[in-house]
Amino acid sequence: MKTNRLEAFSDGVIAIIITIMVLNLKVPHGTSAAALSPVLPVFLNYTLSFVYIGIYWNNHHHLLHATREITAPMMWANLHLLFWLSLVPFVTGWMGENHFAAVPTALYGVVLLMAAIAYFILQWTIILGQGSDSLLAGAIGRDRKGKFSMLGYAAAIALAFANHWLSDGIYILIAVVWLVPDQRIARALKDHLET
Amino acid sequence: MKTNRLEAFSDGVIAIIITIMVLNLKVPHGTSAAALSPVLPVFLNYTLSFVYIGIYWNNHHHLLHATREITAPMMWANLHLLFWLSLVPFVTGWMGENHFAAVPTALYGVVLLMAAIAYFILQWTIILGQGSDSLLAGAIGRDRKGKFSMLGYAAAIALAFANHWLSDGIYILIAVVWLVPDQRIARALKDHLET
Amino acid sequence: MKTNRLEAFSDGVIAIIITIMVLNLKVPHGTSAAALSPVLPVFLNYTLSFVYIGIYWNNHHHLLHATREITAPMMWANLHLLFWLSLVPFVTGWMGENHFAAVPTALYGVVLLMAAIAYFILQWTIILGQGSDSLLAGAIGRDRKGKFSMLGYAAAIALAFANHWLSDGIYILIAVVWLVPDQRIARALKDHLET
Amino acid sequence: MKTNRLEAFSDGVIAIIITIMVLNLKVPHGTSAAALSPVLPVFLNYTLSFVYIGIYWNNHHHLLHATREITAPMMWANLHLLFWLSLVPFVTGWMGENHFAAVPTALYGVVLLMAAIAYFILQWTIILGQGSDSLLAGAIGRDRKGKFSMLGYAAAIALAFANHWLSDGIYILIAVVWLVPDQRIARALKDHLET
Repeated sequence: MKTNRLEAFSDGVIAIIITIMVLNLKVPHGTSAAALSPVLPVFLNYTLSFVYIGIYWNNHHHLLHATREITAPMMWANLHLLFWLSLVPFVTGWMGENHFAAVPTALYGVVLLMAAIAYFILQWTIILGQGSDSLLAGAIGRDRKGKFSMLGYAAAIALAFANHWLSDGIYILIAVVWLVPDQRIARALKDHLET
Repeated sequence: MKTNRLEAFSDGVIAIIITIMVLNLKVPHGTSAAALSPVLPVFLNYTLSFVYIGIYWNNHHHLLHATREITAPMMWANLHLLFWLSLVPFVTGWMGENHFAAVPTALYGVVLLMAAIAYFILQWTIILGQGSDSLLAGAIGRDRKGKFSMLGYAAAIALAFANHWLSDGIYILIAVVWLVPDQRIARALKDHLET
Repeated sequence: MKTNRLEAFSDGVIAIIITIMVLNLKVPHGTSAAALSPVLPVFLNYTLSFVYIGIYWNNHHHLLHATREITAPMMWANLHLLFWLSLVPFVTGWMGENHFAAVPTALYGVVLLMAAIAYFILQWTIILGQGSDSLLAGAIGRDRKGKFSMLGYAAAIALAFANHWLSDGIYILIAVVWLVPDQRIARALKDHLET
Repeated sequence: MKTNRLEAFSDGVIAIIITIMVLNLKVPHGTSAAALSPVLPVFLNYTLSFVYIGIYWNNHHHLLHATREITAPMMWANLHLLFWLSLVPFVTGWMGENHFAAVPTALYGVVLLMAAIAYFILQWTIILGQGSDSLLAGAIGRDRKGKFSMLGYAAAIALAFANHWLSDGIYILIAVVWLVPDQRIARALKDHLET
């Protein structure tokens, strides 16, 4: 399988996920500004999830860009990642409609944690397929951002039952950390091309 | 990141936005022609939004066509534009179902205004990345259409609370102005290629 | 604009239309085979509409394949076609849920007629852009299938108010006529390539 | 028609099918962990269907990769396959919401059986178009997995009325058998390229 077909399929699925999430914004029945207030938490959560899916799309692109050939294990590791991302609209809706209550907030973290683990697996499946001295292995390095995210999600899941604002803060913090785009792979690729 | 992957992803998201909007047309329960009457304002508003999304798709294509290389800021400026466009189905449904009441009509304008600002930011992110003497900077020129649209949306938001027909008229007028396709970039590109 | 981007965007929209139609099949509440019976007419109508969208996708491909360059009028004629096709899920659901009642059956015909007219306009926009002695103009010829379809839809709309089974029969007949794929353009292209 | 456009369109439809299935996961009204329990069977069934659609996507890719040219019968055999796959979200939702009751479990098998038959038809349409001594014909061989699946679905449909757990077990077993990716075509292609 060629990289570009996997990329096109993943792009398609990610584009659909990021767009159908908006279906969680139910058209309010009233016409006053107050009628919008139940939609507001769903909207805020939609915004957060939109940023997360955007981050995954961006990082996923860099990852595949550094991949030469797709094997069957990579294909399934990629579908596994898409599976967890496909659950983001569901948990986004549940968390938003319930004003960030404890269990929905924790489940949001569970899905994000599983997606992060799936991304980690995909990354290592590619590195193992290409050799640990490959360009990608060097680019990923110690993967501090990835490890920090997984710890953060785990903490947010536990904290949701104590104070869900802490969890929400962690989710926002991790998104901000990633918004600084993944320069590691880009830089390594650039260095490689220049030398 | 290559231009064509950003283009393909944006096309995917825009294709989904333009299509799921039709899910706002709820299947009526009766079987008479009268049963269609509550759907009519949603249909009219769907038509207007379809034209708007079509205009964005068209202009977005011309914009990326004049872009040589995608940087991280351009990627996020583009996702920012897609975010606001993704809200068009929601505000279209709310405005249509409430027969163009004041607040929904104003919110429709807010989303269009934010999308116009996002497009403006994307445009300038690209121009700044390429230098102000670039082909695109010359093609955009003073961007009178873009400025006129933003002023129009702002006026329509305010007027929605006085007389929503004025706002509706402004939304239609701006769409008509843009329906004349963006020849500026096309012409500049053509001149460039011929000389 | 290059042909392949218009093709990719149209493919995306058509793929979404053909797939979201299935959302009209509402999951029944009971678990008996009898619980499926209200879904049956929707399913039958879904099948018919699936075939229609498949026919449009196929013919649309042949049409664009014979097109060298996309102009702004072609772009808008194409969006106009996609607009009417995007309404197919809505009228399919209304007609199916109401067991092919008169008004929904007539409206189904109206949308198919408008799509046929939009296709006709797109075809002529392309031919006029390329000259009447072009490959495509020769391939289309007298366009008997297209004219037959438009007459058929018009007859089905009128007959829906007399006996809707006649209309349903006409819709099926037209689909069968088109299922014989559009060999005209394919043949002309092949002749052209061989000489 | 070129292979890559059929591939892109099929990818688009499959990406939408795999993603809109998640819309069957209805956001629960409560905020307790118990509120999730009605969603659990739908989730489990979603996971199974996600794997099935992933298998079809993977095998479909290998199949088209070994195809040189698309004819009209192949195009329609492919749309026929997409038709049955498009019904997977509907039967997944019905089966999941009713805790794997007899009739929904049997109908799930019917749709999978029809998809398997459609895949079989597509496969033979391609082989007949390319000659029985073609690369693909050799790669498919006796198609034991395909025949085993069809027999399995038929057995599961009948057994659903005796004990639906047997049917569920068969559905899972067939998915596991296919998860071992279709090495036949890949291997034959590789042998072919190496000699």
